[in-house]
Amino acid sequence: MVTHTIDPMTVYLDHAATTPLRREVLDAMMPLLTSDFGNPSSVHGHGRKARAALDEARERLARGLNAQPREVIFTGGGSEAINLALKGVAWAGKGRGNRLITSAVEHHAVLHSMRHLEKFGFEVVVLPVDRYGRLDPEQLDQALNDRTILVSLMLANNEVGTIQPLGELVRRVRAHRGVAIHIDGVQAAPYMAIDVQEMDVDLLSIAAHKFEGPKGVGALYVRHGTILLPQMHGGSQERFRRAGTENVAGAYGMAVAYDLARAEQVEVAPRLAALRDRLRDSLTALPNVELTGHPRKRLPGHLSVIARETDGEALILNLDMAGISASTGSACTTGSTEPSHVLTALGYPEEETRGSLRLTLGRTTTDADIEHALAVVPQTISRLRSATAALVLDPLGEQVGA
Amino acid sequence: MVTHTIDPMTVYLDHAATTPLRREVLDAMMPLLTSDFGNPSSVHGHGRKARAALDEARERLARGLNAQPREVIFTGGGSEAINLALKGVAWAGKGRGNRLITSAVEHHAVLHSMRHLEKFGFEVVVLPVDRYGRLDPEQLDQALNDRTILVSLMLANNEVGTIQPLGELVRRVRAHRGVAIHIDGVQAAPYMAIDVQEMDVDLLSIAAHKFEGPKGVGALYVRHGTILLPQMHGGSQERFRRAGTENVAGAYGMAVAYDLARAEQVEVAPRLAALRDRLRDSLTALPNVELTGHPRKRLPGHLSVIARETDGEALILNLDMAGISASTGSACTTGSTEPSHVLTALGYPEEETRGSLRLTLGRTTTDADIEHALAVVPQTISRLRSATAALVLDPLGEQVGA
Repeated sequence: MVTHTIDPMTVYLDHAATTPLRREVLDAMMPLLTSDFGNPSSVHGHGRKARAALDEARERLARGLNAQPREVIFTGGGSEAINLALKGVAWAGKGRGNRLITSAVEHHAVLHSMRHLEKFGFEVVVLPVDRYGRLDPEQLDQALNDRTILVSLMLANNEVGTIQPLGELVRRVRAHRGVAIHIDGVQAAPYMAIDVQEMDVDLLSIAAHKFEGPKGVGALYVRHGTILLPQMHGGSQERFRRAGTENVAGAYGMAVAYDLARAEQVEVAPRLAALRDRLRDSLTALPNVELTGHPRKRLPGHLSVIARETDGEALILNLDMAGISASTGSACTTGSTEPSHVLTALGYPEEETRGSLRLTLGRTTTDADIEHALAVVPQTISRLRSATAALVLDPLGEQVGA
Repeated sequence: MVTHTIDPMTVYLDHAATTPLRREVLDAMMPLLTSDFGNPSSVHGHGRKARAALDEARERLARGLNAQPREVIFTGGGSEAINLALKGVAWAGKGRGNRLITSAVEHHAVLHSMRHLEKFGFEVVVLPVDRYGRLDPEQLDQALNDRTILVSLMLANNEVGTIQPLGELVRRVRAHRGVAIHIDGVQAAPYMAIDVQEMDVDLLSIAAHKFEGPKGVGALYVRHGTILLPQMHGGSQERFRRAGTENVAGAYGMAVAYDLARAEQVEVAPRLAALRDRLRDSLTALPNVELTGHPRKRLPGHLSVIARETDGEALILNLDMAGISASTGSACTTGSTEPSHVLTALGYPEEETRGSLRLTLGRTTTDADIEHALAVVPQTISRLRSATAALVLDPLGEQVGA
């Protein structure tokens, strides 16, 4: 096993990247990871037991989303769910039209799937957002035409936490016949109640590891009647919509985790919002620190700022040494030297995006965690700025500090 | 949790469908399912620890296949690995040619991916096999032309256990420049040493749950220099070849399981072959029971027969009641009323394929398991045949017995 250890006192404030697998969820998965190991496609007892667990997982998850069990497809994660939704609907609709509409702040799973489809003759319209990351329903309206087959939008943004005005946006889409609506609910699912009927959407993607479920499992809701071409070919699993032996333990864990998250949202969300607000106030009290994303319409545990005159990467590493796990933005774009496409879409110049910092709370975040963060984060920003200023004063020092 | 239980005395003889997750593997996964939950893309301590585990998994699995770590892509399972290999290579090679060659006994993940590609202008050549399920290298040779970009063959068949004469087949492909060779090693991996250098192949797919690893994780070996277009778009994971947050625990479990399986193959394979032979002898001693697949060139724990004048489904259900988990063939085609495409390719008429029975042993199979099977299986076949004969004599009884 890997030998280096994480200080158990480390405060984890990167719940948007991933969350710990919840103990009760792991416990619920254990029988399926031990004695009840069958392949759900087998007709014997071992198989039937696995099938029963998979069916139960599907029913529970469907109930949680206010959907029918047959409308739920289990996938290998959120990205696969999004890929399946976009490509599955685009290819199925190719005879009717070719326009696909999305926004500039979507996750790369959406944007890169769209770019891929573009090579096959689909026309991709990427709508701009305002300074807070919100779409203008009027602009969506103008982009919709007779050739439009799909609109894909996120419920809440992973980098800046902004919640889209979905009700208004969906209403505009529904005024046009035959346009499927896919919602990327990956980041929102842990903290917002999702009701696919009330939201009036056709497809919705979620990922288990964002709400204390296991990694490597996601789900796509597909409204009955929505035609979707499979993207993974092989066996007849998932009603021929996603081939491959089912990850039974993963699917079961996902359903249990979602049930728990949903039941506790009402309690957890305001608590996290209050803790987040304390952190926000202490950071934005510093000079030249600006909240990114919407000030109010944002995920409860989500704080994102730009601390000008700091380097986000250096900040993360310094916070790490001080016992705080934070991020500059999306974990999925780490290692990239490109500025965040989300902050760019919000209108921040490249120079400013370098100072981005994201602190995301989760159900397991405690008051003590936030006390620690309050003691450490503002101080670290100030210290880094002084160090940078010193380096600028002494150019020879720059190489040492780099 | 699901309430009905499996009699712990049940003898599991369906290891080709799936295997139990090995205790040592689950133990190795546990830290990653509890404290070490980070996202490998995060730069902080939690992330680095997850990254280290993922790196270690990749190195171990690569070593086991005699590959380089960067040549290993973790996927959501065997079917995804196969889909990625076929579609990824086909699309990457479209400028050079369009012929894809495979065999009639491949898994549906191969055959259905090929059929999908056919819709986009690829030409698919499906080669026939002999009575034992083996390809004729001469026929492969004749199918190879200047437009050929990919040959996909399985190392060993899931339904009848036949091992292909890969050395000879690969040699024929290598005589043509620019043809990538993909091997479906999913069924063979638990029992046969795989060395991608010695085998001289470009791509190879495996699935963890076939060798006592977790469900929902697979891997694709891709030889350095082989161009592959990603099929899952999004983040930069897996060197941009497969987007999505990595299933770290799954990947780690897969690597540990493969290491264990590989280390024990020399011991396990002959033991299972001997047990299988005892079962085979007792079944083929019955009238009208014929071994399917190759008599010698077959997976060690794999027994498949056609018991004429029996119905495979009825046989499975009766064996289940007698405490034996067996199958009629592939678990991936359950519920299908179509005759097995494998047995059809071997030349069995539809009528005969109905009596197919597959008993597949695994590392955990004991002598006592086989004693039980020897006591139960031949007897059950005989009993079912008498019952069927009685029903034929008394047509009114047929409805009762159906």
